[in-house]
Amino acid sequence: MQRYISGLEGGPEALNDLLRLAAAIKADPEATYRRKPLAGKIMGSIFLNPSLRTRASMEAAMVRLGGHMISLAPGGGSWGIEFETGAVMDGNQAEHIIEAARVLSGYVDLLGMRSFAGMQDFHLDMQDRAIQALADYATVPVLSLESAVYHPCQALADALTLHELFQGAPQGRRFALVWATHPRMCGVAVPHSALLTAARLGMEVVVAHPEGYDLHAPVVEAARALAHAAGGDVSFTDSMEQACRGAHVVYAKAWGSPLDYGQGDAGPARNRAHAAWTLGAHHMEQGDDARFMHCLPVRRNVVVTDQVIDSPASAVIQQAHNRMWAQMALAIQMVDAAR
Amino acid sequence: MQRYISGLEGGPEALNDLLRLAAAIKADPEATYRRKPLAGKIMGSIFLNPSLRTRASMEAAMVRLGGHMISLAPGGGSWGIEFETGAVMDGNQAEHIIEAARVLSGYVDLLGMRSFAGMQDFHLDMQDRAIQALADYATVPVLSLESAVYHPCQALADALTLHELFQGAPQGRRFALVWATHPRMCGVAVPHSALLTAARLGMEVVVAHPEGYDLHAPVVEAARALAHAAGGDVSFTDSMEQACRGAHVVYAKAWGSPLDYGQGDAGPARNRAHAAWTLGAHHMEQGDDARFMHCLPVRRNVVVTDQVIDSPASAVIQQAHNRMWAQMALAIQMVDAAR
Amino acid sequence: MQRYISGLEGGPEALNDLLRLAAAIKADPEATYRRKPLAGKIMGSIFLNPSLRTRASMEAAMVRLGGHMISLAPGGGSWGIEFETGAVMDGNQAEHIIEAARVLSGYVDLLGMRSFAGMQDFHLDMQDRAIQALADYATVPVLSLESAVYHPCQALADALTLHELFQGAPQGRRFALVWATHPRMCGVAVPHSALLTAARLGMEVVVAHPEGYDLHAPVVEAARALAHAAGGDVSFTDSMEQACRGAHVVYAKAWGSPLDYGQGDAGPARNRAHAAWTLGAHHMEQGDDARFMHCLPVRRNVVVTDQVIDSPASAVIQQAHNRMWAQMALAIQMVDAAR
Repeated sequence: MQRYISGLEGGPEALNDLLRLAAAIKADPEATYRRKPLAGKIMGSIFLNPSLRTRASMEAAMVRLGGHMISLAPGGGSWGIEFETGAVMDGNQAEHIIEAARVLSGYVDLLGMRSFAGMQDFHLDMQDRAIQALADYATVPVLSLESAVYHPCQALADALTLHELFQGAPQGRRFALVWATHPRMCGVAVPHSALLTAARLGMEVVVAHPEGYDLHAPVVEAARALAHAAGGDVSFTDSMEQACRGAHVVYAKAWGSPLDYGQGDAGPARNRAHAAWTLGAHHMEQGDDARFMHCLPVRRNVVVTDQVIDSPASAVIQQAHNRMWAQMALAIQMVDAAR
Repeated sequence: MQRYISGLEGGPEALNDLLRLAAAIKADPEATYRRKPLAGKIMGSIFLNPSLRTRASMEAAMVRLGGHMISLAPGGGSWGIEFETGAVMDGNQAEHIIEAARVLSGYVDLLGMRSFAGMQDFHLDMQDRAIQALADYATVPVLSLESAVYHPCQALADALTLHELFQGAPQGRRFALVWATHPRMCGVAVPHSALLTAARLGMEVVVAHPEGYDLHAPVVEAARALAHAAGGDVSFTDSMEQACRGAHVVYAKAWGSPLDYGQGDAGPARNRAHAAWTLGAHHMEQGDDARFMHCLPVRRNVVVTDQVIDSPASAVIQQAHNRMWAQMALAIQMVDAAR
Repeated sequence: MQRYISGLEGGPEALNDLLRLAAAIKADPEATYRRKPLAGKIMGSIFLNPSLRTRASMEAAMVRLGGHMISLAPGGGSWGIEFETGAVMDGNQAEHIIEAARVLSGYVDLLGMRSFAGMQDFHLDMQDRAIQALADYATVPVLSLESAVYHPCQALADALTLHELFQGAPQGRRFALVWATHPRMCGVAVPHSALLTAARLGMEVVVAHPEGYDLHAPVVEAARALAHAAGGDVSFTDSMEQACRGAHVVYAKAWGSPLDYGQGDAGPARNRAHAAWTLGAHHMEQGDDARFMHCLPVRRNVVVTDQVIDSPASAVIQQAHNRMWAQMALAIQMVDAAR
C-alpha cells in the first residue's frame, strides 16, 4: 500500500487484512511490542491543522511498535507549504510540496499529513489536492491523517469498533448517520468516511440532514455501490427522528453546507437555524438498543447531550482507542510494503 | 500514587521514598539507565502554557529511563479544552476534558498537564479545576506539571536540593521565601509549593511580601501544620530585609496579589509600586552564609540582581537539574503503581 | 569539537574527517545504525525560527543513530529568551540564555539552536550574539542549526554534495553563487556558508549580485583566504549571466541588502527592482554542464524557474538528503568529543 487516502485502497481484501491485524495486536499487544516490528522506522507527520487524538495515537502507535514519529507543523514551527503546480511563489508559502515531499522522503520511512478543507470552495476542496500532491511527489508511502475529503484512520477505527459492537457481524444492522448543529462550519471528511465505512460493512445506512447539507455526490454514489456490493443500502432523510427509528448505531457529526463555502458567517448562521439538531436521549430511545458513535472532539450539549455521550450506549472512547490499534496495523502494512 | 498534584500525596513517607529514589538515580545514573525501568512506557504531557525546563527535563527523564514522552499543546497544535461539567460547548473550546482524559488514557501510561491560573478570579483558580478534572477522568496516573495552585515537580526538586545543600539535614534551618517585583502578574503555584516544601522539611520558614500579596489561606494553614509536625514553623513579615536576616536560604519569587485578579493592569501596577523588592547582594549579606534559590525562569535585575544569581551562593542551576532526577523518581513510582 | 557555529572550526582536517564519516555512514547506513553510536544520548534543539528540513533531518539523524531529540520553541511553546548580558528583564523575554544554556546542559548531551538574524541592524546581527551566548554558557557541545551569520550544517551537506557531484574532486571547478529576487528580505547565513564552502574546496568562486547587496566583508575576506590556501579564488560580478558562463555549479540564493536592515519594506522593494534576477534555463545553458544548487525552501518561479529546479541538473534533493548524513557525522563527533 503506497498511499492510504480514501481508505478504499486495496478494496475489501485490504480492509479485512487491516481489521484482522488490528484486532490481533489489540488482543495481545505485548506479543507484538516484543517483536518491535517498526524498529528503526520513522514516520514523519505534517500537521496543517490541530490534532490531539491523531497526533497522540499515531505517535503512540509508532513508538509502541519500536519506531518513532517526527511531527511537523508548517506555518507554525515549519515553513508554509504551496500545493499548486506552476505557482509563482511570491506570497506567504515558502516551500512547495514537491520539495517538502521529496526531501522528507529521504529522512523517514512513512509520511502522514493532516490537511483540512480550505472551506472557501467546495469543489476545489473535493479535489483533495494537498494530500494527493504529497502522495504524488513522495517516494515513501503516504498515510492521510484526515484530508478535506476523507479521514481513513477514523474509518478503519470505526470499522474495527463496529465489528466489536456486533461480534464481527455488522452486516444488515441499521446505521444512522445524523447531522448535528455546531457553532462553526465543519468539513465533510468524517461523514464521508463514516458513510463509506458503514456501506462497506453492508449496513443499512440512513443519512439524516437538513436541506442544503448534501454530501459530495461522487462519495455518496461510491457508498451506495459499496453498500449494494456488500448486501446493504444507503438512503437519505431530512429527519433525525426518522433516521434514529430502529437504528442499531447512531453516528452524529456536524458538517458544513456546500452552499456556504467562502460565504463567511453563512455557515454558522445556517447551522443555528437548525439548532434543534442536537442528538438527545429521546432520539436514542427510538433506536433498537442503539449505540452512539462520534469521531471526537465533540461539542457537548451542542452536537450531543451529556446524557447520551455519558450513557453506556456511548462507544466514543472505544472508537478513539481503536485509532491506535488501527494505525498500528496501517503503519506495519505500509512500511512493510515499502521494504 | 494515582495522582501527584499538590505534592502532599502519600505524606512524609512518600516524600522520603521519592527523595531517596531520586538521590540514588542521581548518584549512579548509568546503573538505572541500563535497567530501562520505563521501557515501552509513554507519558503524554499536555501543555496549556509555555514550558522549557519542565518539557525538557520531563522528556529527558522519560527517554533516559527507556520510555517516551508525547507533548501536546491544546489551542496551539491541539484542540482547545473545556473543563466545566455540563458546559454547552458553543464557544472556542472544541474538546471536553472528559474525552481528552479518557482517550489519552488509552494511548499512554502516565499523563502530565501544565495548567496555569486564569488570573481572572482568585478563588476559582484556587479550585484548580483543570488538573483535578484531568485526574478525575483519566484512567492512568496523573502528574501535575504545574497547576494554578501547586508545582509539585519543582517542590520535589527543591526538597532534593535542600537536602543536598544541608547534607540531608535541612530541619531547623531558616528558609526565607521573599516576594519580588515583576513586570507581569504571576501565579502562586511556586510560592505555595516552596512554602509547603520548606515546611515539610521542618525548616524555620519566614515569608516576606508587601501588604496585599497574601498567599491562599488554606495553603498557609496546611504549611503551618506541616511545619509544626516536622519541628519547624512558619511566620510572616512585610520586610525583605527582616526575612533575610539570619537566613540559610533565600528563595525569591514574584506572585500576584489576590486583589488584582481580573483587574487588567492593576497587577503589574501594584508590582511597580514595590519596585524596590529586587533581591540584591545587600540582602544576601544579612543571611547566615545564605544560599539563593529560584524556580526559573527568572527576570534578571528585576527579581534578583546579576550579582546574586551569578554568585557561588546561587543554587538555581542545581535546582533545575534536580528537576530531572526528581521527575525520574516520580515517573518510576507512578508507572509502577499503575502496573 | 565543543562548538560548531561557523563550520570553520577545526580547519580543513576537521572538515575532511566529517566528510569521510558522513560518506561512510551514507554508503552503508545499516552498519552504523546497528552500532547505535548515540544510544542513550539526547540532543536539545531550540528553534527560535521555523524549520522543516533541519528539524526533520536532525531528529531523524539522532533517532537513526539510537539517540533522541527534544525540540523546544521559545516564544511559542517555551519562554522567550533574553541574550544581552546585564539586561534589566522587564520586557517580553522571560528567561536569560545564561540559565537556559546551563539548565538544558544538565538534561541533554548536545545542544542545537536556530537563531536567525533580527534584520534590524546588520552589524549587530553579524555579531551572532544568540548562538555565541548559547555556546558560551552551555556546558555541553553546541551545534548551530543556522544563525544570523552561518548555516554550518547546510555547509557540510553542500560540501558532501559537491564531492559527490565531482567524484571527490571539486577543486578548480567554477562555482557561481548568484543572488536571486524574493518577496521578503532574507538573511545572509546561507550565501556566507555556500561561499565559504566552495572556497574551502578550492573552487573558482564567482559571486553575482546587484549593487548594494554586499555580503559581510570579514566573511568575504575569510573566504578569499581559504580559497587561495586551497588553490582556488573568489571574484565578484553584478551580472548573473556572466557568473553562469562556464559554471560547473550555479548556487542560487536570495539575501537582503545591508542597507535595508531596519528599513521596513525597503528590502522587498529593492528586491522587486531586481525582479529579472530569477535563475532560468537560459542562464544554466551558459554553464559547462552546470548543476543547480539551492538550500531550500525555495520560491519556485521567483528564485528559480520550475524548468531549472525540475531538470536533471538540479541537485537540491541530494543536498537536502545530505543534511541528514552530514548531521549524523556532526552529532557523533560532537558527542564523542564531550565524552
